[in-house]
Parts: sequence; C-alpha cells; structure tokens
Amino acid sequence: MSKERLYLFDTTLRDGAQTAGVEFSLEDKIAVTRLLEEIGVDYIEGGYPGANVVDDQFFAEKRTRRAVFTAFGMTKRAGRSVANDPGVQAIIASAASANCFVAKAWDHQIRIALGISLEENLKGLRETVAASAAAGREAMVDCEHFFDGYKANPDYALRCIRTALEAGARWVVLCDTNGGTLPSEIDEIVRAVTAEVPGDRLGIHAHDDTGQAVANTLAAVNAGVRQIQGTLNGLGERCGNANLVTIIPTLLLKPAFADRFETGVSAEQLARLTSVSRTFDELLNRAPDRQMPYVGASAFATKAGIHASALAKDPSTYEHVPPETVGNERSVMVSQQAGKSNLLTALKRHGIAIEKDDPRLDKLLKTVKEREARGYSYDGADASFALLAHKVLGTLPDFFAVESYRASVERRHNARGEQVTVTEAVVKIRIDGERLMSVAEGNGPINALDLAMRKDLGKYSDRIEDLELVDFKVRILDGGTGAVTRVLVESRDGSGERWYTIGVSANIIDASFEALYESINYKLLKAAPQAAGGAE
Amino acid sequence: MSKERLYLFDTTLRDGAQTAGVEFSLEDKIAVTRLLEEIGVDYIEGGYPGANVVDDQFFAEKRTRRAVFTAFGMTKRAGRSVANDPGVQAIIASAASANCFVAKAWDHQIRIALGISLEENLKGLRETVAASAAAGREAMVDCEHFFDGYKANPDYALRCIRTALEAGARWVVLCDTNGGTLPSEIDEIVRAVTAEVPGDRLGIHAHDDTGQAVANTLAAVNAGVRQIQGTLNGLGERCGNANLVTIIPTLLLKPAFADRFETGVSAEQLARLTSVSRTFDELLNRAPDRQMPYVGASAFATKAGIHASALAKDPSTYEHVPPETVGNERSVMVSQQAGKSNLLTALKRHGIAIEKDDPRLDKLLKTVKEREARGYSYDGADASFALLAHKVLGTLPDFFAVESYRASVERRHNARGEQVTVTEAVVKIRIDGERLMSVAEGNGPINALDLAMRKDLGKYSDRIEDLELVDFKVRILDGGTGAVTRVLVESRDGSGERWYTIGVSANIIDASFEALYESINYKLLKAAPQAAGGAE
Repeated sequence: MSKERLYLFDTTLRDGAQTAGVEFSLEDKIAVTRLLEEIGVDYIEGGYPGANVVDDQFFAEKRTRRAVFTAFGMTKRAGRSVANDPGVQAIIASAASANCFVAKAWDHQIRIALGISLEENLKGLRETVAASAAAGREAMVDCEHFFDGYKANPDYALRCIRTALEAGARWVVLCDTNGGTLPSEIDEIVRAVTAEVPGDRLGIHAHDDTGQAVANTLAAVNAGVRQIQGTLNGLGERCGNANLVTIIPTLLLKPAFADRFETGVSAEQLARLTSVSRTFDELLNRAPDRQMPYVGASAFATKAGIHASALAKDPSTYEHVPPETVGNERSVMVSQQAGKSNLLTALKRHGIAIEKDDPRLDKLLKTVKEREARGYSYDGADASFALLAHKVLGTLPDFFAVESYRASVERRHNARGEQVTVTEAVVKIRIDGERLMSVAEGNGPINALDLAMRKDLGKYSDRIEDLELVDFKVRILDGGTGAVTRVLVESRDGSGERWYTIGVSANIIDASFEALYESINYKLLKAAPQAAGGAE
Repeated sequence: MSKERLYLFDTTLRDGAQTAGVEFSLEDKIAVTRLLEEIGVDYIEGGYPGANVVDDQFFAEKRTRRAVFTAFGMTKRAGRSVANDPGVQAIIASAASANCFVAKAWDHQIRIALGISLEENLKGLRETVAASAAAGREAMVDCEHFFDGYKANPDYALRCIRTALEAGARWVVLCDTNGGTLPSEIDEIVRAVTAEVPGDRLGIHAHDDTGQAVANTLAAVNAGVRQIQGTLNGLGERCGNANLVTIIPTLLLKPAFADRFETGVSAEQLARLTSVSRTFDELLNRAPDRQMPYVGASAFATKAGIHASALAKDPSTYEHVPPETVGNERSVMVSQQAGKSNLLTALKRHGIAIEKDDPRLDKLLKTVKEREARGYSYDGADASFALLAHKVLGTLPDFFAVESYRASVERRHNARGEQVTVTEAVVKIRIDGERLMSVAEGNGPINALDLAMRKDLGKYSDRIEDLELVDFKVRILDGGTGAVTRVLVESRDGSGERWYTIGVSANIIDASFEALYESINYKLLKAAPQAAGGAE
C-alpha cells in the first residue's frame, strides 16, 4: 500500500522567536537552519522580511539547501494595493522560495481588531496570494484563529480557505492561535473541513496552552491535514508551539502513523534528533529539558529497582520505543533502590566491565547506599558516580591531592566609606610530591575557590583549559542553616560533553569544594582513558 | 442536567518520587500533602509503606484532612499467603484509608517478568484486594501495562479488571506504564472496556512519553473512565506522569468537560493552582517552568506587538481562559494600573493602608520592579516585601545597623594529622550609637554568621529569643559560580508564624546574610506593631 506524504513545516525562527527571552541573531538563524536540515524538515520559515534588520539580512540570500526557504508576513492592508503595500513587497522581494501569509478567519476578530468588512478581508487575502503566485513563489496562508472562527461562523472560515486556494495557495494552515482548542474539537472541525476541501492542501498550527499541542497536531493529521507546523523543542509564545522533536518520532516509530504516512525524514536523520534538540538548547544557552519525550536525558531513565530488573529481562516493558532510534540512550539510575543490575548497567555506560559476582560489586553497592543515606544522590551526578566506582574498584588515578584550603568573605567599609565585599581563597595542592599554592579573589567564596584550585594544576594545567562551570545548584536537605547541604555542579568542555558532580556536607563551602574537585578529577579521568580503562 | 463526578487521584508522593533527582523527606511529604489539600484532590497516594523508612514514618499516622489517604504496594507474591506477605501486611497495618495495589495485566509481562501462570496472577490480585477490603480499607488496583496487555490479550486484561472488582475493589486503574499509547488507541480500548465494565469504577494513569499524557487522560475521560491519576507539575519517571495542574483547569474551565462533569475542586481552590504549582517547585528547589499551561509565568505573556494591542481590545483573542481563574496573571506590558492594584492588595495583607493616588505607591512599584529585574522575587518572600514597603513608605524603624562582617572557612590537617574544617564568623553591629561585636563558630559560614549576628542584639536580644531558622534555599539565577545567587530563608517563632525573606547577590554569603538580616528585622517589626502601623 502506498503511503501518504506528510510535510513538516518548521517555524522555530518565526513563531518560536516570540518566546519570552529568545532573540535570534543572524548567526543563530543560520545555525538553526543547519540543525533543521540535519533532521530533514520540508519547510523552514525563517522570519518576517521587512520587519527587522536581522530578518532582512537573513532573507537577502537563500539559506537552505534542501528545505523550502519560507518567508512570513501579513496579507496586504485594507485600502492599499498589493503593489503599494511595503510589507507584501518586502516578502516578494526576498530570497524566499515560498511565502506564508497570515490572514484572519474569525469574523469577530476582523471586525474588532481590524475594523474592516469580511469581504475586504477576503479581498486582501486573494490579492496577496495571487501576487505571490504571480511572482513564481509557492504561496500559503495561515488562517489565524481558525478554530474559534469556525465555531463562530463556519461558512466564513471555509470561505477564507476556498479564497486562498482559488487564488493559488499551495497550502492553507488551520491555526489554533490562542491554543485553547481541545483534540476532540480539532477532530470534529477538521473532519468537517476536509469534507469540503482536500486535506492534502491543509496544514495544522497548534499551541500548547492546554498541554495538548502535540495531540492536537496528531488529531488533525488523523482527521485529514497533511502539513504540520511546529518548532524545535516546542519553542513559542506563551506555552509554546507544537514540538516537532516530539511529533517526528511518533510519526516515524508508531505504527498508527508509520503504517499510513511517510515524511521527508530518514531513519538516519531521526537518529540525529537527540543531538539536534540538545544542540539547539545549547545555542539558546539553556539547560535541556531532561523530561522531554524521546530526547530528554531522563526519557529512558529508570529509577525503580523492580522496573530496572524487568528492563534487563525485556526492554520493551518500560521502553515504548528503542532509545537508539532517536539517538538517545537508556540510563538506569543509581539510587537508594538500586540493585546490582542497575549498577552493572551504570558501570557499563562508563566503560567499566566487571563480572556480576565480583566481590567489589557488593562493596560498591554498599558504598553507594551508605553515601546516599548521608545525602548524596548519584541519579543526577553521573560523573561523581564514575569517580566513586573507579575509586572503589581501585582504578582511579591519584591525579592531585588537596592539602588545605581557606575561603573568606568580608564586608566592611573601605577608606572612602563605601561598603565593599572582599572574597579570597587560598588552595594548597600536592602533585607528585610537589606542593603548589594559589590564591584568587572571586565574587563569592565558591567562585574564588574554583579560580584558585584551577590557577595552577602543574602538569595538568593544559588538560583543564577548556573546562567550564555551567551551573551550580544548592539544596539544603533537612532545613535550617545547620542542615546538610547538597551541591550539584554541572560542567562542560570543548567537546560539548556535560557532566554532573556532587558534594555533600554540613558546610556549604565544603560541599561545593568537593563537587568542584570531583569535576576537575572527572575531566582529568576523561583525558586519561588508559587509566580509566584499567578495570576492564 | 446533573453532572457526573470525576475523582482526582494524586500520586506525586509515590510515582512522582520516581523522578530523577527527586527524593522526598518526611517533612517534604507533609508539606506536599498540605499543598494537595489546598487544591482539593480526592485521593493522595503518599508512598509505599514497608519500602523505606520515610514512607513508614509517613504512614504511621493519618496525614490528610479531607482527601482519602492512600497507600501503594504490590499485590501479594506468588507462593505465599496474604497473611505471610510482609509487603501486603505493611500496607494493611499503615494508617491509610485506601490501598492501591499494582498488578500486572499483560500476559507477556506475567510470564517474562514474574515467571508465574496467568491464573496465579489473578489469584494474587483477588486475595490481596479481598484482604484490604476485609480490613475495612477502600481497595483499588493499578493494572500495569494495561493498554499493551489489552492489545496482546484483551480477554485476560478484562479478566484482571473483573477479578479486582469482584474481590471488592472500588476502582481499577488502567495504566499506560511505558507511556507509549496514543490518544486514538486509548479512546478505542477504553470504549471497548467500558462496554463491559462500568466506567465509574475505572481510572486512567498516563505517562508523557509521547508528549500526550494530558490528551490520553482526557481521551480516557471522554471514553468513560471517572478517576484521573496524575502528579503536581507532571512529576514522574522518564518524561513524567499526567500533569494534574494542566488537567484540572481544563476540566473546570472548558465547556466540553465543565458542562458534563464536576470535581471536588472549587473555583476558590482553582484560583490557588498557580501558587500551589510554584510553591511545589520551590520545595523541589527548581525553577518553575515558565511555559507550563495555565500556571507558567509566560502562559499569559505576549511579546508580539500586534497581539498586545489586539489583547488590549479584547483579551479573548489571545487568552483562551481568564488568567485569574487559575490565580495567574496577564503579563503583557503590565499596565501601571494593574500593577498598582496588585500592590495595594499586598500592602493591605500587611496592614498597610495607603491611598491609591499616594505618590509613594508609584515609588514602591518602581522599586519592586527594579529589584525584581535584579533577581529578587517577592512572590515567595512576603516578609521581605513588607520590609521593603515600610522602607519606601518611610515607616521602617531603624532597629540596628551592620557595620561589617567576616566569615571564613578553613580546611586543613590539625596537629594530630586529622582533617578538620573550621568555620568562624565575626559580626559588628551598631544599636543606638552603641557598637556590639560577636564571634561565633558554625558548621558553615551562614550558620556561623547567623549565630554571631544573634549572639548579642543588645536591647532586642530577648525579642528574638524564639526566632528559629526553618529552611534555607539557594538558587543560582544564571548558571555558573559567577552568576547571581538568590537565597530564600524561612523562619518561624513561638507564635507559629512562618515568614520568608530573600537576599540576592553575586556572592552567596552576601545574599544569605541579607536574607538573615531581613528575617531578624521582620521579627523585630512584628514585635513593634506601633512602629509598623505608622503608615496607617
């Protein structure tokens, strides 16, 4: 049976740019375009030529290799011709191969927000699409508030679609602009629309305001639409747009869709998805969502001991798809509930091969449990787990030892009567019998200790040059300033790898220092594979 | 038309505890129970008595006021009687009013993971439910892998349900354990099941592995189930469980559900939802998801200029529900007017009466906004807000001034070669021209500063005798040790009142000191009502 083709339309660079705190530079837009082509989307909507300098520059040349390079804009304003509408002209003059024009389809909106007649709105739509088609560009129309419009006045909403198609639009996209429509309503309305208009001319654009953007999108596909709009990692205004990173694997891996449809995404491209999603967050300088479907660091993580042993017997019991299909990996967490099978899996991930009946395994399990009872949590601190494992197994090289440290913070008034805070740290370390001491100032005791410890690591100095602290989290475990403090440090290096280390102490400075020390040790361990592999 | 009742079952403290990096203490469990009762869920599943010390302590007494206090556990093991199964006995011996037992319903799983016969599995289910019912507890059964099981062997999956109901279970919950089932499949299977078994005896337990936990839950309700399992903020293993914080407003505010169903959640409780969701994240010491449907800080935020002006004309165009119904607020260019009315409400809460056109109100609004831009967040630090308000209004007494402080942490080896950490703080304060200096040691720099500052407060010493620090939270706002640190301190005194103060600085010690200083000032302000009331 031949499969029907679904088209993927990415609007990360246009609707996704409406996200609070997100602003793409020209370089960002070029980088995101490259990421999108890695996963094989069909259309890349790059922005709004004529709206700002970055978008003008971006649309000055063709930026895609395979995907259709698409510009966004508004249909012409009432009371002027297409030729005299600078917005429409900027779009037609751009290097885009396709143009997507937004038009209102809700009668109420046209009257309230635009203050024009319903006919005038259709006229603008018709003439804008015709002008784009005449210029040899693929034209499409985003029908804003389509579902609210259809509920209020189905005839007019349908007239908008027909007008656009008759004027030459390749696609008309049904937009749930305020994100409030439910899947059952999407299903009902799309079925009614596809009874009148061919579904292979229709698209869906959903928002996540009820947490159902993905479900709304898939409901629309089931009901007949054949173009899907969405963004990387669900970027977008308010609660975000439909997340293509979630939708794509469902379309390719779930028989309910995979048996009926094909997309432009190959199995190889699908396997790049986890990397693309995380690289995109990197570019946005934010921590990837560990719980994101398919690609999150926790998406295939199991904590419960009972689950872990069942998983070892048969992965399908707790994995709805094989993690490697999307480029992700299984991660069995080490936690209080951990059993030996969890531990073996975790060790394997770090390249440590050990027999199931090796007595050191019992020792490691006991050590992990003892430390977790004292407040450590290796779930989120995989690098510290690797160090602990190597230590218990006797395969951790003795890189350097800390002899002593001191950190002080003083707030006082200086000679000119200004209030100043001075933070200083001294760290004394020993490498191969040689004693090195460094002092540093910082904007806090932990920053100062970090700077002092890394200032001079002797023969290891060049190995940690690209080590960077990304995040630092503090949790007080029992409450009150006298309680136990758990510090989690996230680090990364030039290779793009991120790792997590942990420190626990009643003293926040001690706990932080421990996590910093472990981060450096992990970095050195990475750089010394011959030592790390000693257990094998 | 009378509405059908839907029952909300929260499993934050049980299935939610499977989240990577989450570990609830006894105090956490008590606090989360309080939050859940604020929003009116029907069942609170508190954990797994017999599985660990915290859960044993939690189930040693009844922890809920209105919600049904529910314990989770496994059905009895094959080969032993219920009376000889320590797991089942621990659950029956607990203070829970209802017991939820998990049983396998997928034939494949029973053979592979349990290695027992299908009949033996039903026998365990039957006897366990019967024992719970005989003990006078409401019994329910979570059918693990129900949908995969139904696809493989519908007759056996249905037999599991019937066996549980016949043995006396109030509810049988259909679990999508690996989270891979699609809404269309949920719809089809639940319709088939409710043709055989009454839907008001069935529940749904969905996971977010395809980003459709909410849609799957609502699809199951549409298809007939009447109990909904989920967690606060979608906590849970892998990609999380169905998010009750998203589901509840949809059930109460969307006519497709609100016209047909009622829940135990009142409009007043719904309006607490944003606060409960954010307080829960606070407790987990993680930043709330700004894009979370309904309650996220961006859920009603608009960036697009065109949207903002349309919104001004008619909020319904870009807001699918009114933000105040869930206790959230619109954040499009917060109008001075809207800001002022918020502020007046907050001032009134602290007994500060001020006229709406008082120019000091503008000054306070400006100060709050400036400080929030620098990282302060007065949402969770009401005592600091009260102090700031009194300061700007000119009604804050000048209790005492800190001239300087110093804190130091030193780790070294002592004379006997043992590793020791010594922490010391010196605080110099001035009260009515008198200079007081104190030194203290602590188990961390903040503890030492707290002890030193409180050691001698001169004439105020007896007023702060019952002041106690309860909790202390640290969040790094931008990432890395050089970022801005926000410290939140929770205090209480003999009256039972709890209050929250905040400090923000690049230096964690400075930020902590500020929050401690504010806590003491708030305590003194409380004890000096004549001064605090000066503004009235």
